[in-house]
Amino acid sequence: MQSAPPDPELLAAVTDLGSALRALVEASVRTVVDPGELRGVATGVRALTERLEAAQRGVHQLPALDDPVDFRRVFNPVSGVGSALAPPLTIHQANGGVFARTSLGLAYEGPPAFLHGGMSSLFMDQLLGAAAVAAGLWGMTARLELDYRAPVPLLTPLEMRAHVTEDSGRKTVVQGIIALAEAPDRALVEARGVFVMPRRDKAEAYFSAITDASGQAAPPGRPTDATAVEPD
Amino acid sequence: MQSAPPDPELLAAVTDLGSALRALVEASVRTVVDPGELRGVATGVRALTERLEAAQRGVHQLPALDDPVDFRRVFNPVSGVGSALAPPLTIHQANGGVFARTSLGLAYEGPPAFLHGGMSSLFMDQLLGAAAVAAGLWGMTARLELDYRAPVPLLTPLEMRAHVTEDSGRKTVVQGIIALAEAPDRALVEARGVFVMPRRDKAEAYFSAITDASGQAAPPGRPTDATAVEPD
Repeated sequence: MQSAPPDPELLAAVTDLGSALRALVEASVRTVVDPGELRGVATGVRALTERLEAAQRGVHQLPALDDPVDFRRVFNPVSGVGSALAPPLTIHQANGGVFARTSLGLAYEGPPAFLHGGMSSLFMDQLLGAAAVAAGLWGMTARLELDYRAPVPLLTPLEMRAHVTEDSGRKTVVQGIIALAEAPDRALVEARGVFVMPRRDKAEAYFSAITDASGQAAPPGRPTDATAVEPD
Repeated sequence: MQSAPPDPELLAAVTDLGSALRALVEASVRTVVDPGELRGVATGVRALTERLEAAQRGVHQLPALDDPVDFRRVFNPVSGVGSALAPPLTIHQANGGVFARTSLGLAYEGPPAFLHGGMSSLFMDQLLGAAAVAAGLWGMTARLELDYRAPVPLLTPLEMRAHVTEDSGRKTVVQGIIALAEAPDRALVEARGVFVMPRRDKAEAYFSAITDASGQAAPPGRPTDATAVEPD
């Protein structure tokens, strides 16, 4: 089944709001304005929230822009253009694997001026899953292993890469790294993930309640948290 | 050295803005308002961002409320009261370990209606680090391993636990799980982390540029991405 292309006007608006929210989140951790001004901004934030809450989807209803079969998930918390939590990572296909380039703000901080260790694992999980998808495979994360070689600096150009190293039936093994863009061969973080396609009965149990934006049953045949990969 | 208590007025305002932002982020992924309204909200968001950007700290300057020696990090992306990315997890000490209870919104979604696999690893990294801190130890994440037994549902009460299993000099091993609050002994996700205290020369190299809010040199002696743990 060919999926319908996303509504361009809605996609542009969701992308615009995602960008605006990301800048607001980063400003909120860097600001040193006084408590009165923080309270004033919080009041403004609540008024905007009310406008968005005027009409909402349910937890089992996919966003109108999403298509899990095409791996399009606009609110994915790592790669979604509409997600305020996501940098977002734009994942490209190259050299038999995938890569992403980014620079991360203080909102992602763990130790002072460095990336939170758990954020490295979050980004790697997404990138490893995307490498499986790019290789025509997919699965849900079954195991994830990370070795932290050196801290990852914030506000610094980074390169993340991943490629499938093993593919046996329902199981795919993927490896990846996080490095400085200026030293892409020295891994700061190394990751290995095992992705397993759930058996049909499990997939049905997990996703039977999922509907599309119109409310029609739409349990995805290939549900995943991976996202669209830009062609080479 | 005893650290100064945080400014209560500033802490309350940062907490208020953090809560408001979290609700805005969740509303932004659940809303189905039309593109024009999304654009209008984005314009409002940008105006609020400008107000926060009127005065900002630098990347090496700690927030006024933070005290890494006390493990107080108000913008920590997992447990920080001021972080829009954080649920936030409130981490308690009990039974020789730590635990947190939470329920996660659609902003954290991976597969439809379930938690993103990388989010499980992010939360576990934080909780495992907090267990080390609660045991009087600390370190930076050196290795993290996760086994995903079953998907973690969104909008469902969860319990996360962790405890130190091994402590040998600079190295601490911690194990933890994510479970449903109603079935706390059945692990949906199992995690194991190795935390290592960096050697003095490395710690100095990593953190020598860090200053306190007033701009005075304040390289933390025990830098960590862990956070305050509520006493039993």
